[in-house]
Amino acid sequence: MNVEKTIEWVNTADYEGYSLMIDQTLIPYEYKKIKVNNSKDMYNAIKTMIVRGAPAIGIAGAHGVALAAIENKNSGNFIEDVKKLADYINSSRPTAVNLKWAIEKQMDVIYKNKEKSNLEIIKLLIQNAIKLENEDIEINKKIGDYGAEIVPKGATILTHCNAGALATVGYGTALGVVRSAFEKDKTIKVFADETRPRQQGARLTTYELTRDNIDTTLITDGMGAYFMKKGMIDVVITGADRIALNGESANKIGTYMVAIAAKYHNIPFYIAAPKSTIDPNIKTGEEIVIELRNKEEVTIINDKPICTDKVKTINPGFDVTPNELIKGIITEYGIFKPNEIYKLFE
Amino acid sequence: MNVEKTIEWVNTADYEGYSLMIDQTLIPYEYKKIKVNNSKDMYNAIKTMIVRGAPAIGIAGAHGVALAAIENKNSGNFIEDVKKLADYINSSRPTAVNLKWAIEKQMDVIYKNKEKSNLEIIKLLIQNAIKLENEDIEINKKIGDYGAEIVPKGATILTHCNAGALATVGYGTALGVVRSAFEKDKTIKVFADETRPRQQGARLTTYELTRDNIDTTLITDGMGAYFMKKGMIDVVITGADRIALNGESANKIGTYMVAIAAKYHNIPFYIAAPKSTIDPNIKTGEEIVIELRNKEEVTIINDKPICTDKVKTINPGFDVTPNELIKGIITEYGIFKPNEIYKLFE
Repeated sequence: MNVEKTIEWVNTADYEGYSLMIDQTLIPYEYKKIKVNNSKDMYNAIKTMIVRGAPAIGIAGAHGVALAAIENKNSGNFIEDVKKLADYINSSRPTAVNLKWAIEKQMDVIYKNKEKSNLEIIKLLIQNAIKLENEDIEINKKIGDYGAEIVPKGATILTHCNAGALATVGYGTALGVVRSAFEKDKTIKVFADETRPRQQGARLTTYELTRDNIDTTLITDGMGAYFMKKGMIDVVITGADRIALNGESANKIGTYMVAIAAKYHNIPFYIAAPKSTIDPNIKTGEEIVIELRNKEEVTIINDKPICTDKVKTINPGFDVTPNELIKGIITEYGIFKPNEIYKLFE
Repeated sequence: MNVEKTIEWVNTADYEGYSLMIDQTLIPYEYKKIKVNNSKDMYNAIKTMIVRGAPAIGIAGAHGVALAAIENKNSGNFIEDVKKLADYINSSRPTAVNLKWAIEKQMDVIYKNKEKSNLEIIKLLIQNAIKLENEDIEINKKIGDYGAEIVPKGATILTHCNAGALATVGYGTALGVVRSAFEKDKTIKVFADETRPRQQGARLTTYELTRDNIDTTLITDGMGAYFMKKGMIDVVITGADRIALNGESANKIGTYMVAIAAKYHNIPFYIAAPKSTIDPNIKTGEEIVIELRNKEEVTIINDKPICTDKVKTINPGFDVTPNELIKGIITEYGIFKPNEIYKLFE
């Protein structure tokens, strides 16, 4: 499998290197990779969504810990100093659990090898980061293969936001299912919600799908139900940023409305996400912290305001879809009913 | 009642004049009125949405017929020539029935007075157009007063698109209800959907409500269900562009999704519209022609594309909300259950 990585670690010397990532804020206008070579820049890259998508920011977190370790290679308080920076990176975005998950994976490497030298630990952190990268692609391929089974022949799939190659190291989760289905059946089509305010559907999903020659139609976020009623949507598949043990799933704002509309039209709604998106520490979706983002994402588009400054706004980045709206959660271990997803941790 | 008119007839001499209207494509950046002084320009003003909103384009149609008559004041085939231009204006936008309704009202004036001179008929057309303008404001005030009764004290009202002063000659339908409720209770609040693709919610609704000092929060089209679930929305009120005799209502694309979400959360969803929005010639919403608009409305915002040109799109301007989602239709004759709206024609 030869997949170009959205984010990858590049070694420049023994115990040194940087994170190379596609700057997703420039797509679809420019396809450019940037180097992130310190933990503060990694915090900013995640916060400003140069890198975004739950699995991709997990890897960004893993890289961030490696960078934090390199910054402290001569520290006498190595573990504490790295932990402080890891917590800082983890605070960049609250909702996607993969960030926390990957940072903890890296901290485990440190704790388990605390007797070793700083340089030895740095080497292990880099190795682990690269391992997580490669695993992410393998996991997505498995999600894709399981998911492809629920895509009817010639189906039109509606998706919201971008759970694609760009949201992961490669291949994608929801769009991994699309890719896997497309490998078997070139007649499938995708309807992509624009996904205001940040327009990841318009800017990223349509970009990566049309590059793969998949038939892609951009619609605005208010149109889904119209096409469902017309019988033009066969299945809805989105990614997730955090899934509670009871299956309730946080995903990009707007997902919940799509799920309600799908239910109303008896169209199956699926979540596609790796096990690392499930948070074993929370029982229900109520416990998921929803990130509130800045006003300007709503009020300014392409550098121009769409309303006067007297207007208030609230900008939740995510919403939570309850179980009764979710037909199944597609993981690398198979497809689970939402109320059975906890079994992955038994 | 002193209401500034969104669109009004201005006489320049006996049997001469023009239509003066706010250019709604410039709001919120600029508040500017333009003169429309021939029927072709009126067609274009409606088509390009310089004037929009079902009741407002009704008046635009009435003005258009007056202009067509003035253009043909010396014609020997006066009625036929005016009728041809009236049909042309009527073809500018297919969904809102008010355009057809007002044009027919004007054609009735012509047919009923066909023995009179062209100039006499022109005078009557102008008088009738001004009468329709003033009636529109009075009707909206009645709609507002009936509607205010269903707005709970301190309520937050969600609305979609702009059914405001700008969508009518003045005061508004859905926003007429808001204004009327606000006169009695200054603590009510409005959440306004952005309303992609044309953003009438962001550009027009927030503009006119904040000008009236009504507490207004702009949200994106995917956010409504999030705030409903949080208990922050008490009632949803939108306008309509055409209502079938069975109560099924066409309104701006995205309304249907909001209505489904409202039902899911047991939040009442109301349509506010004058009798002239009800089409007595169609039995169900299935018969309503949905305007398909150009691709660029979806793919370009503020003069910049949001996707590559490989992306397809479909751009329906409206969707139809079925009766089971509509708690009531607020008219100038009171509030009707959707399946009883036909009684207005008995």
